[in-house]
Order: sequence, then C-alpha cells, then structure tokens
Amino acid sequence: MLLPVYTTGSLRFLLLLQIQFANAEDKQEFQKYPTKAGRRSLSRSISQSSTDSYSSAASYSDSSDDETSPRDKVQTNSTGSSDFCVKNVKQAEFGRREIEIAEQDMSALISLRKRAQGEKPLAGAKIVGCTHITAQTAVLIETLVALGAQCRWTACNIYSTQNEVAAALAETGGVTNTLPHTCFSPCSILDDGGDLTHWVYKKYPSVFKKARGIVEESVTGVHRLYQLSKAGKLCVPAMNVNDSVTKQKFDNLYCCRESILDGLKRTTDVMFGGKQVVVCGYGEVGKGCCSALKALGSIVCITEIDPICALQGCMDGFRVVKLNEVIRQMDLVITCTGNKNVVTREQLDRMKNGCIVCNMGHSNTEIDVASLRSPELTWERVRSQVDHVIWPDGKRVVLLAEGRLLNLSCSTVPTFVLSITATTQALALIELFNAPEGRYKQDVYLLPKKMDEYVASLHLSNFDAHLTELSDEQAKYMGLNKNGPFKPNYYRY
Amino acid sequence: MLLPVYTTGSLRFLLLLQIQFANAEDKQEFQKYPTKAGRRSLSRSISQSSTDSYSSAASYSDSSDDETSPRDKVQTNSTGSSDFCVKNVKQAEFGRREIEIAEQDMSALISLRKRAQGEKPLAGAKIVGCTHITAQTAVLIETLVALGAQCRWTACNIYSTQNEVAAALAETGGVTNTLPHTCFSPCSILDDGGDLTHWVYKKYPSVFKKARGIVEESVTGVHRLYQLSKAGKLCVPAMNVNDSVTKQKFDNLYCCRESILDGLKRTTDVMFGGKQVVVCGYGEVGKGCCSALKALGSIVCITEIDPICALQGCMDGFRVVKLNEVIRQMDLVITCTGNKNVVTREQLDRMKNGCIVCNMGHSNTEIDVASLRSPELTWERVRSQVDHVIWPDGKRVVLLAEGRLLNLSCSTVPTFVLSITATTQALALIELFNAPEGRYKQDVYLLPKKMDEYVASLHLSNFDAHLTELSDEQAKYMGLNKNGPFKPNYYRY
Amino acid sequence: MLLPVYTTGSLRFLLLLQIQFANAEDKQEFQKYPTKAGRRSLSRSISQSSTDSYSSAASYSDSSDDETSPRDKVQTNSTGSSDFCVKNVKQAEFGRREIEIAEQDMSALISLRKRAQGEKPLAGAKIVGCTHITAQTAVLIETLVALGAQCRWTACNIYSTQNEVAAALAETGGVTNTLPHTCFSPCSILDDGGDLTHWVYKKYPSVFKKARGIVEESVTGVHRLYQLSKAGKLCVPAMNVNDSVTKQKFDNLYCCRESILDGLKRTTDVMFGGKQVVVCGYGEVGKGCCSALKALGSIVCITEIDPICALQGCMDGFRVVKLNEVIRQMDLVITCTGNKNVVTREQLDRMKNGCIVCNMGHSNTEIDVASLRSPELTWERVRSQVDHVIWPDGKRVVLLAEGRLLNLSCSTVPTFVLSITATTQALALIELFNAPEGRYKQDVYLLPKKMDEYVASLHLSNFDAHLTELSDEQAKYMGLNKNGPFKPNYYRY
Amino acid sequence: MLLPVYTTGSLRFLLLLQIQFANAEDKQEFQKYPTKAGRRSLSRSISQSSTDSYSSAASYSDSSDDETSPRDKVQTNSTGSSDFCVKNVKQAEFGRREIEIAEQDMSALISLRKRAQGEKPLAGAKIVGCTHITAQTAVLIETLVALGAQCRWTACNIYSTQNEVAAALAETGGVTNTLPHTCFSPCSILDDGGDLTHWVYKKYPSVFKKARGIVEESVTGVHRLYQLSKAGKLCVPAMNVNDSVTKQKFDNLYCCRESILDGLKRTTDVMFGGKQVVVCGYGEVGKGCCSALKALGSIVCITEIDPICALQGCMDGFRVVKLNEVIRQMDLVITCTGNKNVVTREQLDRMKNGCIVCNMGHSNTEIDVASLRSPELTWERVRSQVDHVIWPDGKRVVLLAEGRLLNLSCSTVPTFVLSITATTQALALIELFNAPEGRYKQDVYLLPKKMDEYVASLHLSNFDAHLTELSDEQAKYMGLNKNGPFKPNYYRY
Repeated sequence: MLLPVYTTGSLRFLLLLQIQFANAEDKQEFQKYPTKAGRRSLSRSISQSSTDSYSSAASYSDSSDDETSPRDKVQTNSTGSSDFCVKNVKQAEFGRREIEIAEQDMSALISLRKRAQGEKPLAGAKIVGCTHITAQTAVLIETLVALGAQCRWTACNIYSTQNEVAAALAETGGVTNTLPHTCFSPCSILDDGGDLTHWVYKKYPSVFKKARGIVEESVTGVHRLYQLSKAGKLCVPAMNVNDSVTKQKFDNLYCCRESILDGLKRTTDVMFGGKQVVVCGYGEVGKGCCSALKALGSIVCITEIDPICALQGCMDGFRVVKLNEVIRQMDLVITCTGNKNVVTREQLDRMKNGCIVCNMGHSNTEIDVASLRSPELTWERVRSQVDHVIWPDGKRVVLLAEGRLLNLSCSTVPTFVLSITATTQALALIELFNAPEGRYKQDVYLLPKKMDEYVASLHLSNFDAHLTELSDEQAKYMGLNKNGPFKPNYYRY
Repeated sequence: MLLPVYTTGSLRFLLLLQIQFANAEDKQEFQKYPTKAGRRSLSRSISQSSTDSYSSAASYSDSSDDETSPRDKVQTNSTGSSDFCVKNVKQAEFGRREIEIAEQDMSALISLRKRAQGEKPLAGAKIVGCTHITAQTAVLIETLVALGAQCRWTACNIYSTQNEVAAALAETGGVTNTLPHTCFSPCSILDDGGDLTHWVYKKYPSVFKKARGIVEESVTGVHRLYQLSKAGKLCVPAMNVNDSVTKQKFDNLYCCRESILDGLKRTTDVMFGGKQVVVCGYGEVGKGCCSALKALGSIVCITEIDPICALQGCMDGFRVVKLNEVIRQMDLVITCTGNKNVVTREQLDRMKNGCIVCNMGHSNTEIDVASLRSPELTWERVRSQVDHVIWPDGKRVVLLAEGRLLNLSCSTVPTFVLSITATTQALALIELFNAPEGRYKQDVYLLPKKMDEYVASLHLSNFDAHLTELSDEQAKYMGLNKNGPFKPNYYRY
Repeated sequence: MLLPVYTTGSLRFLLLLQIQFANAEDKQEFQKYPTKAGRRSLSRSISQSSTDSYSSAASYSDSSDDETSPRDKVQTNSTGSSDFCVKNVKQAEFGRREIEIAEQDMSALISLRKRAQGEKPLAGAKIVGCTHITAQTAVLIETLVALGAQCRWTACNIYSTQNEVAAALAETGGVTNTLPHTCFSPCSILDDGGDLTHWVYKKYPSVFKKARGIVEESVTGVHRLYQLSKAGKLCVPAMNVNDSVTKQKFDNLYCCRESILDGLKRTTDVMFGGKQVVVCGYGEVGKGCCSALKALGSIVCITEIDPICALQGCMDGFRVVKLNEVIRQMDLVITCTGNKNVVTREQLDRMKNGCIVCNMGHSNTEIDVASLRSPELTWERVRSQVDHVIWPDGKRVVLLAEGRLLNLSCSTVPTFVLSITATTQALALIELFNAPEGRYKQDVYLLPKKMDEYVASLHLSNFDAHLTELSDEQAKYMGLNKNGPFKPNYYRY
Repeated sequence: MLLPVYTTGSLRFLLLLQIQFANAEDKQEFQKYPTKAGRRSLSRSISQSSTDSYSSAASYSDSSDDETSPRDKVQTNSTGSSDFCVKNVKQAEFGRREIEIAEQDMSALISLRKRAQGEKPLAGAKIVGCTHITAQTAVLIETLVALGAQCRWTACNIYSTQNEVAAALAETGGVTNTLPHTCFSPCSILDDGGDLTHWVYKKYPSVFKKARGIVEESVTGVHRLYQLSKAGKLCVPAMNVNDSVTKQKFDNLYCCRESILDGLKRTTDVMFGGKQVVVCGYGEVGKGCCSALKALGSIVCITEIDPICALQGCMDGFRVVKLNEVIRQMDLVITCTGNKNVVTREQLDRMKNGCIVCNMGHSNTEIDVASLRSPELTWERVRSQVDHVIWPDGKRVVLLAEGRLLNLSCSTVPTFVLSITATTQALALIELFNAPEGRYKQDVYLLPKKMDEYVASLHLSNFDAHLTELSDEQAKYMGLNKNGPFKPNYYRY
C-alpha cells in the first residue's frame, strides 16, 4: 500500500525503507548513480553511525535492535494509526527533539511558515517525496504541511535514514485510515535521485496526467529528467533545483570549504600547516577546498583541464601543475573533478609513504580504487573510513572512505546548508503548484531567479544581515524592479 | 582625410585625436557615458600625467610642448610619409621602447603572432580601430598586422593618449600615399565606447554593407549596440567582448583587488590595518576590494541590494549593513555599485572627520559629489586627485578623484590585464573575419566559450601553468571534446 | 614497588595508574590544577573514548572489561615478566600498531635515534617519567632507551591513558627482575604537572641528591618549580621546556588554529561562514582561533586587557570590544585568557538563543559554569560534550565540554605537535645529563636557544624544507656562528 | 652657533642640514650605516621628490630654488628672529598645513599633550634632537614643547628634510636671542642614527655630565650605543626605543606588509596575482611581505637560515627553499635579511627575463648590486627608481632603487606608524627625565614594558578599540596589577 489518501491538513506518513532496494537490479542501479545530493541530507546521527562503515544503525538507536525488517512489523502510534513503516515508532520522542534542534537552524522555513500562514499557498496540494529522512527533511515536510499540503514520504536511502526522526514523523502523522494508492493523486513529487519519479513513471503513469510537476534536487535525478525530456517522454513540468545559484554555492563552495577540513580531521587528525596538497579540479568544490587549506597553512597546488579555471587558480595563488609532476612530493591528494581515473594506479604507486588520498568530487570513480584491490597490496583498516593500503616495500597510502565522497562519509552537512536546499525545494513546489496554466510545459526548468533571490533573502536573518533597498530613482536608473530580480540570468556571481 | 587606403601588409596609421570632440555635443555625450572600459586602457604614463588633473601631457613628453593642434601641423616620418596625425613624430624612439616593454608582459599576443604566422588568419582584413592609444594597444595593432591585417587607428580619448606611442606607430606605419576615404572599405571595426561605430554609421553607412563586423569592448559601447539591435538598426554582426568570462574576471575581480590598494596608497598613504571600511556593492568589483582590504587587516562591512550577493558577503565574513547604520564609524567608504547617489549628502554630513570617500564602480554618480559643491563647504585640493571637503565645524572628508573612478584616476592597470583584453579583441576579429557565412547575423554576440578558453590558455604560460589534458576515456565519460569547450554556457566560474 | 632497577639498554616499564589518586587530597589537588599540558598528550583514542564523558575506556578496548583495578591483577607478559601494572597486557599488539603509526609522524625522534646511535648520549641515564601514556609518549620513551637510557614510567592521568599502548610498553619492557625502589636512583625526571616531582620530593628526597635534573613540560608543573625555587627548596636543576619557543608556538598558535575548528565541528557541526564570534583574549591561542575562524568566513571580534595585544588585534583586522557591548549578537563565544569568570552569568543571561560557548584557554574557570547550575535553568545533554542550558523562556545556550578545554575534550592533538614537545623533552634530558658540572645550578632554566633551534631543524624534513647556510663571510658580517643560535634571547619571533 | 639657550616654554629651532656631511669621512660613515630608521621618517613629500632620484627638492618647494646653502643665507622669521637655518622660511605656511594634516593621524601625541597639560612632565627639560625633519617630527617636537620642554633640533639627513616643515618650525620657534652653545646644557638627546650623540661626545663631552640621557631610535644608533657601553665609554643612561615591542611590530611587520605592495606598484605596476615570488628572510619584515603577497594571489616561497623561523614559514604555508633551487622560475625576488650578498651575481645571471629584484631589508648590501656594474651589462633607467639591467643576450632584470630599501625609496610610511615611534620617543624622554636617581645607570635600557603598553593604549582610540579592565578578583587570580604590565618581559607577542 504505497500511496494512501490523506485526511486534510494532517501529515500522513509512510516510511518504505526498502523501496529502492526491492530487488537486486534496483540496488545496482542506485549504486551506479551515487548522487552528490546524497551527501546533502546527511545528518549528524548518520555520520556517527556511519563510523562503523555503513551500518544502518543511527546513533541514538538501540544497536542491539533485532534485525526484523520494518515491513514485517506492525506498529501502532499513540493515535492508534498503523499507516507507516518505520523501524521503531517508540523512538518518536527522541526524534522529535532532533527535529526541534534542526528547526533552530532552519529559521528560513519557520519564517516561511509564518509568512504564508494566512494564505496557505499549498492548500490542496498532495505531495509525495522520496528523500533522505533526517531531522532537516522533517522540518521541510512539516513546513509543507503547515502551508496546506498533504504529504506522504519515503526514504531514498536506508543507510542515511535517521530512524528516530522517521518515528517522530510516524507518530505525528495522525493517519487514520489507508486507502489504495489509486485513490491518491499526488500533484507534486519531490525527488532526490529520481527513483520515485522512475517508480511512478513505471508503475502509475496515470498519476502524471494530473500532476503539477516534479521537483528534483540531485545531479543524477536532474540528469535523468533531461534525458526523459530529450527523449520526449517527460509528461509533466520538472523543476531542476540542483542548479539554482544559492543552492550551488552552498552545496559546493561554502560547504566544501568547511567539510574538507572536518572530514580530514575526523579521519586522520592530520595537521594542515605546512602540508603539501594537490587538489585535482578547480571548480566550486576545488575552490572551496583550496581556500580552506591555504588559509590553514597548507601549500596547495592544483590540476585543471579548463584554461579559464586554471587562470583563476593562478590569480588565487595556486601553482597549476600536472599531477605527475608533483605526485611524489604530496602529503595529501584531493579529487574534485567529477571525472574518472583522475588518480591512477601508476600515480598511487609513486606517492610517498603516508600520503593521504581522498575524494570530494561527484563520482566515486575519481580515484582508481579498484586497481588497489590487487594481491600484492595489503589493506589494513585502521579506523572507520580509513584504510592503509600497504605496498610490498612497506609504503602506506592512507585511503579515506574507500574513495567515496569524503564529505558524505566522514563529515556532516551543516543544517544551515540543508536549510538552503529545503527552502529552495519548498519554493519550487509552491511555484509549480501555483503557476498559471501554461507557464510551465513538459520540460525541465530552472528556479526563477527571483525565487532564488527569495531563498537567499529568507536566510539573511540568520546573519543579522540588513539589505539595502533601492530608491525609486535608483531602481529607474538601473532599470530594475525594486523587488528584483537584480541580475540578468547569465550573471556569474 | 579620415580613412585612406593601405598598402598590403604594412601598417597605415592615422591619429585623429579630436575625433570625439569635434563639436560640443559629442563631447558632452562622451562625458555622459564615462565608460568602465575607459580605465582598462590606461597606461602608466597616463596615470602619471593625470596626477595634475586632466592634463594631456604624458610623462615622457616635453611638457613645454607648444600647444599647436596636431591637426594643424604637417609632420613627416623617416620614410617620408605624412599620412598620420600625431603630436610629435620625433618622440617615436621613446614610444618604441614603451611598446617593447609592453610586449614583455603581452606574451599571449606575441605567441598568437607566432602560432598564426604561416596562415595569416587576417590576410586581407582591413581593420579600423578607435581605442585608447597606449603601448599595449600598439602591441595589439602590430599583432593584427602580423596576422595579415591592414590597420588604421584613431584615439578614443585624447587625455589617455600616449603621444610617444602614437609617434612610434606613425613612424613605422610606412604610409606612402593617401587616398580618399571612399577607397577604404574596412571589413572590421574595433571600437571602445561606440564612437567610431556611431561615426561610421552616421557618415559612411555604406561601409557596413561589406563589413564583417564590429568588435566592441566597453560597457557603454555594448549598451549602444544592444539598443541598435533592439531598434533593428544593426546592420552588421557585432561581438560583445566586454562580457567574456576571462575579461570580466580580470577587469573586475582580479584587477580591482589590486587597484583599490594601489589607488588608496598613491593618493592618501592610508594604513589599511585596523581601518573600518564599508564597501557599497558586493559584485565582482566589490568582492575584489573587500578581499584585498580584509587581507591587509581592515575591518570591512558591505551594503547590498541583492540577497544572493548579500549572502555571499555573509559567507565571506563581511557584515551586511545599511549604510546609515555604520556611516558615523567608517574610516573609508568605497562605492562599487554602478548606481547613483549611493552615498548621499546626508551621509557625507554624518561621516567622521578624516573619512576617505572614493568610487570604484561604473559611473561617477555613485557619490553625490554635486551636493558638496555648496557654499557652506570649503574645498581644499591637498594633492593631485585629493580634495579635502571641509564642513563649517572643521570636519574634513577626503574625497578622491572628485568621485570619478579611483582606478581610472589614481592607479594603473597592469599590462597583463590589458593583454587579456587585447587578446580577446584579436580573437574576436579573427572569428568574425573567418566565420563561415551565416554563422553571425546582424546581431550582438558573445565570444564563443571556446575562444574565451583559448584567450585564457594563451595567458597560462605567463604563470608557468601546466594544463592537464583529458584522456579519450575521460573525455567520453564527461561527454566533452578534448579541446573544449569544457563548461556549459551558464557555468558561473 | 615503584622504582625497580633496569637492565641496561632495555626498557623497564611500570604503569601505576593510581599514583596521583592514591588518596583523596592528591586527587583534589590535581583537579585544582587542570593543566594545559593535559591536552597536549591527548591521542585519538582518548578523544573518542572521552566522547562518553570521562569514561576511561579507550576506543579499542573491550568496553565490557571488568572493572578490577590493574593494581589487583597479576599479569605476565610474553617474556615472563610481571614487573608492570597495566589494564590488560594482552592488548599489546594493538598498542604496538598505534606506536608504529605514531612513529611515522615523529620522524624527528626517529632521526634523533639515528644521529645519536653511535654515541648514546643517554648511556647510563636512569630516567623516570610521569606523563600521559599515549602512542606518542611511547615513541619518546623508546627513543630515550635507544639513546642509552633506562626508563621507568607512570601515567599522570588515568583518563588519558591509552591502555593498549601501556600494554605494548609492558610487553617489550623486558623486565627480568624487580628490586626495591631504594636501589633505583633516577638521574633524571620527566614530569608533566609536577606530581612525580612532588611525590619524589616528599617520599624519597634523597633521590634528588644524585639527580641531574628535572624536565617539566606543563604550565602547572613549571609554576610549582618556580615556587620551589623562590622558596629556596629546589635542590636540583630544572628545565622549563614549556616555554621553549618552538613548543609554545606549536602548542598554542599553530595547534589551536586547527583545533578550534575541529572541536567545534565535532561537537556542533556549526557552519563557520557568517557566524558572529567573539574571542576573549588575543594571546597566541586567541590569535590562532581568530585567524582560523576569519579565514573560514566568520565575523570575529576580540576582547583584550593588554593594549599591545589589542593593537595587534586591530592591525589583524579584528574589532576590539568589551564583551558586554557585543554579547547579545554573538553566535559563538570563545575564551582564551587563562583568567577566571571571563564570561559571567549575567553575560550568559544576555546571550541569544543558540549561542555556543566554549573555552580554549588555560583554566576551566573562564566561563562561570558553576553559576549555571541553578534551579531555574535546565541542563540537557544533547550529545557527548554538548549541553543545552535552557532558560525559563526557552532560550538555549550551547555549552561545550562543560566549560573545560575544548581541545582537551573534543579534538585531538596532531602527532606532529606532540613530536615537537617530545623532541624538546628528549633534548632537555640530554642537555641536563651531559652538561658540564656547574652549568646548571639549583634553579629553573629555559632550554638553550640553540637546542630550541635544533628541535625545529629536526622537524623541517617533514616539510621538505631546505635551510640556507650562512657563508663564512655572511656569518662574520652578521656576527653569528654558522650553526646558530641565530637570534638574541629576547627575539620575539 | 650650534646649541643656543632657549627661553622657557618656547620652541627654539635650528636646522643644520649639513651636520652629517660636514666632511667626506662623515658622509662615508653615514653611508656605511644605512639605518632602517631612515625609512621611518619618510614623509609623502619626500617620497614624491625622490622620484627624480635623490633630488633634495620637496614636492611643494619651488624647484627652481637657487642652490645657495642655507648656511650662507640670513633669514628672518615674522617675529624677527634669525636663530635658525632653513632653506626658505617663507614656506612656513605651507609646512604648517602639513603639520596640521599630520596631527590628525597622530592623535596619540595630541592626547598626550592633553593628559599631561597640568603637570608638564618635561618642565625644565632641555632637549636637542637630530632626526629626519618631517611633519610628523614637528608634531613630536611641538608635543615635547607642550609638555614643558625646550627643544632645539637638527636634521639627520638633508635628503629626507621637508623644507616647508622646517620653515614652519623656524617660524613658530620664537627665538629671541642666541647664546653660545656652551651656555646650552641639554639634559636629553633624541637621536636617530647616533650622529648627534657622536658629535656631542667628540666636541662637547662635558655636556654629558649633567645630561639625563639619550633616546635613540635607529638600529645603527643603538648598535653604536651598545659598543660604547661595552667599551665602558657610555657616560649617560641611554634608552633603546628601537626594540620596544610596539615600535618593532609596526616598523617591521605591519608597515612592511603594506609598503611592499605600495613600493612595487608605484615602481612597476606589476600584477601580484599568480606571480612566483621568493622572499629571502622570514623575520618580521619577511613575514609582513609574505603575508601581503600571498593574500594578493602571489605564489610565495622563502629562504631562511634559522630553523625556527623556517618552521614558522612552513606552518604559514610557504615552501622553504634555497635560493638556487628556485631562482630560475621567480618573477620577483625580495630580500629581507639584513645580511650581505644574499642575492649574488651568479644568481642574477640565472634569473629569467623580466625578473624584478628589490630589497626590503636592513642594509643595502643584500643584493650584490656592485657586481652588476660591469662592462658587459647595460643599465637603462626606465623610470625613477627603476633600472633595467640588460644582459648581452637581451635578458633584462628589473632592479628597484638600485638595491637600496624599497620602502625608503619608493613608498611612504603611514603617519600612524610614525606616531607610534614618536610617542615611544616622547615617553622615553619623559621616563629618563623623571626617573628617580639611580634607576638608570650608564647603560643601554629598553623602554619599560608598562610604557610600551602605554604607547599602545594611546593608539587604540584611532581604532575605536575598547580595552577590557581586569576586575580586582581577576587581577588577583592572575597575579597582575590592574594597570599593567600585563606580560612578563620575555613574552613574545
């Protein structure tokens, strides 16, 4: 029973942890598309739990929990409802506190709740979502409900699910009865990775006939949507929130500037001062990593394929090198390219003893980790997420997170960054739901710049930042509307 | 005699210093559109000469020069030609040395000369240009000639003209005879501010029939072209090189990061450490100023109208304030907005004694300087480009460059930055001249990203920077051509 | 049986975890002097174990270990010796690996082992030590042994003891027989906190008659030594290694620059960008904290009592304020003063909701935590080392580590920093042991600058740093010895 | 008539521009000891005048001035006095304005005037000074007078003398009659370079019998005093203000951080971004240069002889190299060592075309400029202070200021820095004059730390910086006096 009808104004909630992994192919498919978005929803609890390498146990969970699948358990919340599927609904109180803590750093959503209280811009909207289930997602869901929507949710990744939070959502969902999915016609889909879209598309294509649109936040999901669109198979409007300016800058530049330090410290306790570092790729992620490490006293050089980014690197004070030129001297090798085999076995062979290798990029193919799984090399797991790969001569290379994303595996994403994403998603859902007919066709759209600016403005209060308003005279002189948008679409920020 | 025919492969040169100011209206019009591009072509000599406030005497010129207009003098160069109009052709040797010095920092153009030596991509091109006449422009012109073009040039601003350089160009021009303008059919126009375009459009509209296109580098000129295009009056393709990525970053972020320090030091010797600074506007220019001043120990806050830029400011560590909140405490007020009346008389009234006020933005209306020209205030010129405006109670505000662009008036633009611009112009001319028919219509175009990347790549050698090349496998994985372009058009860098 | 005789050239080891806490007064005394040095010896394992708030279980230990005191167990190592007292000698192999990992980052000590191999500068030296027992300490001890010394060790703090490492030391100690302590005449004492010195002084005063000296690394221990000296009761030379230049810079400036970020991230996942921060105290620790936070985009102001440090703060770009002026706006309050009640209850009352408060200073009295233990406030432990203190109106203040040192409790010290300290200690022991009679009297000495320089030089190879050597002519011109010391004693670095 | 008696409370002034250069040996001697202090007193006017290479004409002077020596002219000021020797007393008004402008940035001295107005701590003091004569010195002199002193002054360097300021001092001096020098018994000497001390010592040794002491600010002068002291020939107390903490940090770290940028820009317009730079010497001056250039995007490496400074360099993110390893790649070579032949002819031979070489250190022997004066090399003066040295193969090295101090020659010292020095001098004079007998013997002393702190505190108001005061309880806890000193003498800041 996947998509039951909701009673108005209350949250109906169903956690189907297994949805993506119902069969073996699905799982493989998911692993083929490791999403950058994946890391976005990581919460503290997950990060802690993940220290024992992909255990699904969240930090506050009873780790001796029986391993019965949630699907096979029947649970009842305090209102008597059983219309949910979570690990242990009794953890609800614990999860509620996590949600409350998250709310403190997500004042943009809280403020959105207040501003829209009278009008309820999502009144009547039925939204299904498939995202990481974390305290921050819960704040988003409860905001959508406060704005009038009916919501039903599922997890896009069982390993990232905060079970207590799921329990809290199941508890307050207040589901009273469950109708067959055919009765539920979601008007909007909020997706992260494209799995839900794919599933609905395959199993309930009719749903799309009445739908207002899809909001997708992940690189992978967006990629899938563009493919659908190219193939002429996209039958609803879709909003690509992944490429909104505000989200991009926070996901990549600002967030990675901090998480590179955090991830390295938590795993290796390395001292940054004086370390020789090469950062492969000087896009936004690379810029963030370089800026942070330089500031902490590392000696940083970069590799680039794009001459414009390379020239930026020069101007920012980084030597632009080929990896082979410097690989022998480096203490730390970081990939931020989104490409494959950026660090090859040959280069791993030439690294010096103790060199740390990690990946901050998009894919987990940047470091050729597969090539290290060969008989002459010994792997030694020294800590969670930290392997020493040992050469026959005793040389050790320190490989973090087995080449997967360091910030996914070994760091947490600040709630504030998740707030940017969640607010962008909420506004995209509101825009799609309220847009006059014809504004959006069966295509993939970027968030209108004005809404992007609105997301930013909702977050300024966190910093006690005071915007200046244009006078009428100034607005006229600049040819701008006083309320924005303030920049042409091609503006580069 | 404006546009004489050229003999093949040699440089014909004519300096018409008065072209823009032939009548009073033109002059006013020019002053109405003070171009940001203006500052780009400033050379050292100009900057020095300008220290006595708009004197036209360049540094190496004999300042006791008679004031006869060049138009009224007949001069002959060493080859016997008189087909030019410069202040004093005898200064040629001095100017040649300046050109040679400039060449050392413009290796991108020199390299372009070499790479294209065999093919002469501009063979047959007749180019007329109207730009600042500086050593750097001379390197550009001589590069165009080396690539096969015939060139004829004029100055867009008599105050920025390096007369020795003009003399050097007149000397080597090798003009042997002069035919009426009707014989000259320039296929390409290189303009800076749109004056030449306007003049040809008005006086010789037939020229455009056969022309391959216009290359325009200034904000003002580009604005005029878009207006022509909107009005359906643009009858040749035009290339907007002002908005190419590489040029923008260098003109604004990288260049202003240095020139704000330079301009302030040369005028006021202010110590940056510990100074309270407000920077109005956190676009590229503002980002450059803030970054430099913060690094030198100033305490910087910003004002913004755009919430996205404001949020960037927060993340970069700057308090976002309204000007009125902080104006009383500031030691230094810098405008970078492009807007008008950003600093009002009321705010000037509230500044503390000794506060320095200057403008790094686009227009010279950012500070309401006009309001300071009132009887109760005393102006005291303490140094070139530095006025003390004195209130009745003795308070002094230090106004730089009378509110005009600080970097135009009180600093010089590094040759390297001019090299970026000149190379971009050269490539735009080559592109327009060689484009297959139909690629460009009667519209305004941005430089193709691939050529923007090529400009960047030509400058990497200055930094001994080594680009990484994609392997075939990687290119395929990324869906990229190995030679670029490497980014989608909307990429924000 | 505290101080048995050693056989030459091998390590005799005894872990008496309870030594400091043999009686109630001692324990109280220890707690009265929480030493900065304390944090220096923290290893990764400890930090992890300490996440459940002062459990003594190290990370790799079997947490279900029985709670029998090591004193009451008789254990035997693989050589048959029982002359040690550790938790569980069977963990030796695990500890050995930790030691080997530490050796990789302590190449200075390894290099010292090699350089001094022939001469054995500590041949004949009997050294007793009382320090934190960590992998890094083990590398130091085994270095001393390699240089010829006989060593016997005890832990200065049971909570910081890495039990596996203790086991490894017990295993390789190779003790064959145990003689009464009266037979053991240590010539040198290496102390951390002064407890061992105090104990020997009280119980075995005769030991000091033949001793070459005491090497003390902690602020507290040094303070005690100066008091003894003032009182005329110091009867051996003592070396204050705490105040050596190299150690100071690394312990305070360089280490805290990184650990402030690490400690805050691990406990709160706070995003630094845009946060308003006040750092109380702009000494070396404060300078490190400010520099790091500024670089990561925080908006930092400082408080100071010393006008010279305050002026440095200005020049470095920080507003110098009184805490009361800014306390309402701050997101983060960090103390680095060594003083008491720097943050008062009144100020805690005025903080905004969500403000984070922590201590990086010397004492744990900087924040008046005691005042928060009052009935109207609710304490909620949200994570290990993180308490929410909740005011009646719902305001929460986030208190880290209950006001104890953040870097002690919530971060780890890089092995490289511990290497600086350990090398300094080793050289001080060598200096005292080999100094000609009369060079050191019964007083407290700083490490000779030349040895301080030597410590630094031993660490340069970690960075592939190449020193320049003075030519004879240059040395003469500067009036310097080519081998140093290179600076006068009062040089400030 | 060198040292006439003064009437009480008024300023007597005598400018003896030739004093150091009265004969050839003296001149040579002066040149042998090029003082770092020299650059400290440079004012804007000087810097401008020096652009035509060691002209003595100050900027506002009539450059067509006759070349009669001031000594041979008899001039009379408006009060009828002729007891002075300046270039042209009629420039007084101009100089007075310069003094007034300087006063605005020297509020510490103005504040000292006010605080001490009642007590006149220098009442009765007769002070002779020999320093650079600039607007800032004038503010110092007039402060001493305001505090009760009688002053008589002379210039330590005719090339640094601001003649208008000298005129202003001559004008307001109000000398009414002139007595032979034997009648003048200065109690205090303020010296810069030691020339006046040397002269008095040689010619009027009896003066020292009654003198309270000497205050010396230059490296050279201090060196001379220590030599005198060692030789047992120092017969008055002397105060070494050069090594006071506050002065040192401002003269070296903070000032050079800005002047390296300023000096390079004014001479070469070089763009800093991406430039490869080697800084020889990582003391305070080198730290300042490195920090500024790194912040502006240069890629900086350093050379060092001292392992402690080298390790600091590593931690601050700079590669530590030998000059020979990198010399071929550098765009910019900067010396900050105080040593000789740091850059040798051989290294100059290996530099690449266009490399810029300059000296920020103490002596002018750091670059072996003499070796460049050989027949095979061509020197070309391209601008004031900028020479191209041209190798036979056409390679050019850009030598700034002929290897003399860049900040002396090509930059100006902010008034704020001069204020620190002047205030330190004033306090040293007050201390020596008021010290109880016996506090100072015939030796060289550092300024008491408490007065150093006082200098700093007087400058905090420039930054609106608010010091925190210790509570009684805190002062007791720290063992400090609430009014300072706050640090032990060996504290390193």
